[in-house]
Amino acid sequence: MTNIVILGASGYTGAELVRLIATHPEMTIKALSADRKAGKSYGVVFPHLRHLDLPTLCKIEEIDFTDIDLVFCALPHATSQRVILKLPEHVKIVDLSADFRLRDADEYKKWYGGDHAALELQKTAVYGLTEYYRDDIKAARLVAGTGCNAATGLLPILPLLHAGIIDPDEIIIDLATGVSGAGRGAKEGMLHSEVSEGFHAYAIASHRHLAEFDQEFSLAAGRPVEVTFTPHLLPQNRGILATIYVRGEAEAIHAALVAKYSDEPFVYVLPFGEAPATRHVRGSNYCHIGVVADRRSGRAMVFSALDNLTKGSSGQAIQNANLMLGLPETMGLELAPLFP
Amino acid sequence: MTNIVILGASGYTGAELVRLIATHPEMTIKALSADRKAGKSYGVVFPHLRHLDLPTLCKIEEIDFTDIDLVFCALPHATSQRVILKLPEHVKIVDLSADFRLRDADEYKKWYGGDHAALELQKTAVYGLTEYYRDDIKAARLVAGTGCNAATGLLPILPLLHAGIIDPDEIIIDLATGVSGAGRGAKEGMLHSEVSEGFHAYAIASHRHLAEFDQEFSLAAGRPVEVTFTPHLLPQNRGILATIYVRGEAEAIHAALVAKYSDEPFVYVLPFGEAPATRHVRGSNYCHIGVVADRRSGRAMVFSALDNLTKGSSGQAIQNANLMLGLPETMGLELAPLFP
Amino acid sequence: MTNIVILGASGYTGAELVRLIATHPEMTIKALSADRKAGKSYGVVFPHLRHLDLPTLCKIEEIDFTDIDLVFCALPHATSQRVILKLPEHVKIVDLSADFRLRDADEYKKWYGGDHAALELQKTAVYGLTEYYRDDIKAARLVAGTGCNAATGLLPILPLLHAGIIDPDEIIIDLATGVSGAGRGAKEGMLHSEVSEGFHAYAIASHRHLAEFDQEFSLAAGRPVEVTFTPHLLPQNRGILATIYVRGEAEAIHAALVAKYSDEPFVYVLPFGEAPATRHVRGSNYCHIGVVADRRSGRAMVFSALDNLTKGSSGQAIQNANLMLGLPETMGLELAPLFP
Amino acid sequence: MTNIVILGASGYTGAELVRLIATHPEMTIKALSADRKAGKSYGVVFPHLRHLDLPTLCKIEEIDFTDIDLVFCALPHATSQRVILKLPEHVKIVDLSADFRLRDADEYKKWYGGDHAALELQKTAVYGLTEYYRDDIKAARLVAGTGCNAATGLLPILPLLHAGIIDPDEIIIDLATGVSGAGRGAKEGMLHSEVSEGFHAYAIASHRHLAEFDQEFSLAAGRPVEVTFTPHLLPQNRGILATIYVRGEAEAIHAALVAKYSDEPFVYVLPFGEAPATRHVRGSNYCHIGVVADRRSGRAMVFSALDNLTKGSSGQAIQNANLMLGLPETMGLELAPLFP
Repeated sequence: MTNIVILGASGYTGAELVRLIATHPEMTIKALSADRKAGKSYGVVFPHLRHLDLPTLCKIEEIDFTDIDLVFCALPHATSQRVILKLPEHVKIVDLSADFRLRDADEYKKWYGGDHAALELQKTAVYGLTEYYRDDIKAARLVAGTGCNAATGLLPILPLLHAGIIDPDEIIIDLATGVSGAGRGAKEGMLHSEVSEGFHAYAIASHRHLAEFDQEFSLAAGRPVEVTFTPHLLPQNRGILATIYVRGEAEAIHAALVAKYSDEPFVYVLPFGEAPATRHVRGSNYCHIGVVADRRSGRAMVFSALDNLTKGSSGQAIQNANLMLGLPETMGLELAPLFP
Repeated sequence: MTNIVILGASGYTGAELVRLIATHPEMTIKALSADRKAGKSYGVVFPHLRHLDLPTLCKIEEIDFTDIDLVFCALPHATSQRVILKLPEHVKIVDLSADFRLRDADEYKKWYGGDHAALELQKTAVYGLTEYYRDDIKAARLVAGTGCNAATGLLPILPLLHAGIIDPDEIIIDLATGVSGAGRGAKEGMLHSEVSEGFHAYAIASHRHLAEFDQEFSLAAGRPVEVTFTPHLLPQNRGILATIYVRGEAEAIHAALVAKYSDEPFVYVLPFGEAPATRHVRGSNYCHIGVVADRRSGRAMVFSALDNLTKGSSGQAIQNANLMLGLPETMGLELAPLFP
Repeated sequence: MTNIVILGASGYTGAELVRLIATHPEMTIKALSADRKAGKSYGVVFPHLRHLDLPTLCKIEEIDFTDIDLVFCALPHATSQRVILKLPEHVKIVDLSADFRLRDADEYKKWYGGDHAALELQKTAVYGLTEYYRDDIKAARLVAGTGCNAATGLLPILPLLHAGIIDPDEIIIDLATGVSGAGRGAKEGMLHSEVSEGFHAYAIASHRHLAEFDQEFSLAAGRPVEVTFTPHLLPQNRGILATIYVRGEAEAIHAALVAKYSDEPFVYVLPFGEAPATRHVRGSNYCHIGVVADRRSGRAMVFSALDNLTKGSSGQAIQNANLMLGLPETMGLELAPLFP
Repeated sequence: MTNIVILGASGYTGAELVRLIATHPEMTIKALSADRKAGKSYGVVFPHLRHLDLPTLCKIEEIDFTDIDLVFCALPHATSQRVILKLPEHVKIVDLSADFRLRDADEYKKWYGGDHAALELQKTAVYGLTEYYRDDIKAARLVAGTGCNAATGLLPILPLLHAGIIDPDEIIIDLATGVSGAGRGAKEGMLHSEVSEGFHAYAIASHRHLAEFDQEFSLAAGRPVEVTFTPHLLPQNRGILATIYVRGEAEAIHAALVAKYSDEPFVYVLPFGEAPATRHVRGSNYCHIGVVADRRSGRAMVFSALDNLTKGSSGQAIQNANLMLGLPETMGLELAPLFP
């Protein structure tokens, strides 16, 4: 049994970690922190988890890390780096914030504004896209969880850039995401009255997850790659669908994806010509990918669906933690999606 | 043409007033106030109304009331009374807050906590349930809009108490309301993630609209009446359905409702045995009422559906304003419901 | 490992059984039947389960029951009894239809219309409300799953009738249910356009689950009990909330519920004065119960929330199957609810 | 006052026509047909319109067209052409089906399969995109309403092709639509359980509205234009958002749109850099268009939002009917959008 701490446990990704660990056979939650809600029982903050026997929410400084094996850090961006800097050396860390995703300090500054407080750590952090950095993750002390939109776009496109079968300059990622990705903070724009029965694009051509696309796509292509990326907000809680327009032969694209993912436990490539739906991965760690040929030859649409709170953040985090702790990678993560 | 001002125009009831007045042939909006959003164009705050030629949002003190005929006051409770107290005498007022609904100052204090700042005005205010106070409303300077839940419960039950055909001690109002009734303020509990795909009761046995039920039901019955009232929050934006359990003969109940409402322009009594749905009154000023007999004799269920933002507040407000201004009561209010 | 067959696997309760069995350590699915979809892969019919290695859908007559331990029968009412009649004697059966819920053949005929085709079996069937019939279920060959609405009303009220602390003649069950309870059949009234953003009552004073209330409440009270029952349709997929109006002392009611359920693994009684929400049990086998005092003494509201597809049908079915197969009762059922 | 008939009035576009005509000052509904629902009161089929005094639903052959000025034909594709062929010559027709949208009979056959039954009429029909064919519509006997998706894509792109400021070979229309576009027929895929809380693409690279894009874009560009088009299904009832990727200078694109639409009553071009939302046009005849520059120079995203049942079909139909009848074009159509 491994001993786990979750920092920043009062948000949705924190609750999703707790939900998944609830039936994980080898993880025990030893502490849950939430500064402003310290002292509250977790079941009061998240009544859907009231049946669990969990530690009371506390402040970070109250936690004894002596016997802790791994910390999930679900704190806000910028706060996360400051807290992680002070964690004892023996503790492994999976960070769900954006703080350690970008390898280049200038890129970090450009997209997140402000100097990084933990530059040395940033250099050692491994980007948590499991299907690409599995060996590094196994050996890492600090793994940076990917952006949820980033994961949805990277998984279907990276194999195509590696294979050199699409034009790197002609990638358009049109994406729609559920509202839980915006977190539990009270914002007018995320009210039920404002979100339901409506659809719109946001952060157009300026979303921070562009930084992750640039970093990973350029690495895969061996030269700078800039994509077009338009996220939209869906009137639903969970799920991201990316519809990606590429130049290349659809069947070759499908073949490359099958080749890459046929042995992966959580990434499913649908039969050629089929497209996925977010509802079919809801609450699970699965990612479904599909390829459809455009009516114009040499063009194709690649689709990718995952649950932003699971494969897009907390499920991915546990998948990486399993690797870091020497546990089977899929442990605790094979819950089937919830439908309807 | 009458000149209209809306105070507190940045909330949902304010926007609903603007939406309805947009096609009202005899009302012109001369000023729109919203303290914290003063200086903004209305179309920025409510983009669905961007096609309208409207005054920029301003502070109340910037408004010249000289030529104003009527003010809709959509300010928060407690604020409203202080503002209305200072309005010039020639201005008629429809208040959408709770400030002038209760005739008894002690009741006001009990339910809303704190002394009333405009006790004299409170005495002259008319309770804005049009179908019961039409003549008083015509003559009033200040009309207090009803609570949206209160209207939904009062319309179907008042005729039964007046007729003496139900037991006043055995009234249970079970009610479900859409989230727009909670307003546009950013609250965690009203986030899409918290509201959608779920249902729960709130303010159980303690909702402030109980005060309105007590006041009006007691008056109708000629003796104190206390009801049981349980509101629930629906995962939808608009609409209230009351399911009311009463003791009496179902057919007599239906007949009394038909008798009361057959000539009313906005209240429809469905054929005996049919029950209404909130979706069939959405966006309109109509209230649908139905009666179904229980399988146990002497018991019946009375159902009432209306749109909380229209017949439950802003539509009712315009209906009352029409009366106060000597305009046809239904003017601007005959928009058909929006379905689906 | 036990060998399982699911008959009628193409509906939502069938899919929910498969979802739950997917991570059940001691059940293996040997056959899945669906007459009209026979020959199709299960992942085509329910793409959310495409990651599972499952038998192709077949016709019932193609199934070899020789090594089968238990059959879940998720067929429609009336069909179910005819199929179960022909199953080999060694096979245990959990039926999710209404066919074996009523002990009295006349009651069956009255509510479901038509003679029962398996009267002898009907006499031996055990009503599957686990918390009340656990010992009988352990010994049974045939267990009849409860109605989902019935379970939601029975769990909070039965202990109160047993304890004699509420008036059996004054029980009003006001209930709201998600649409998945209506099944996957294409009906106009269940279209997204017809259901979303709306709320209404249906089957008022005539819902078939009244038969189960009558049967179980009368048995508990030791004399005939008839309740008032009004179901409503919610614009959400999963979840039932019952708001039940009773006569009795709220604190005694709460105490009786705590006493009954404190050792039950799936029924949680909330602290006095708190009410549950359907979203906090979504996708789980948990039932949350709450008690709030009315403002009028001697009256109380009892609330009960469960997921109609899990604790209301397929989760309950597996709970019962575990008992029938000698497995730990909670095996495979401790998945935490999915929120948001 | 003009006399109107609606054929096929039992579907959503039929009901939307009735909703809008309810407050149209110069149209009177003389007959409503619905073959399978003939004999029913309209308020039974669409309870949200029960307050209106409307003719009972009838069969087409029961209608006396003698005094009828205009027929709205909301029948299914293929049926529509056969019915319209037999209408008396003096009657003007706005057809909401796809039957008369394509000028080329071969294209019709290719996309809709089967020979056209009214080839001569097809040649005289005017394509109902009001902002482009206004003069022809005024003079027409038969106007073919556009596809709802087609209108959403055509309005923002046609001015750019006319102006020659985008590359006609590099247009990608990514679009998301609400479910009401699929009509009221009972289909498994349109159930609330199947649609809500999920998102997916459908009819990828094969949607029939491609035929309209090809026809109108080619005409505008003066040479064959084939676009890429991917529609998605939104978990909401009303509204279409098109996110269109084009090659051209964003500011020039915005300027061309402003130039084209500044005098149009129903098409609003948002300030440069802003994008529209479907919720802000819900229930109205308005179309909101926005332009945002991509981070890569020479690329832009053009957004377009409208309500599929209003500007996308029934509102557009009334706008065209107004022109055909010599009424003010905006008559009855200036209802403000319903939000929230």
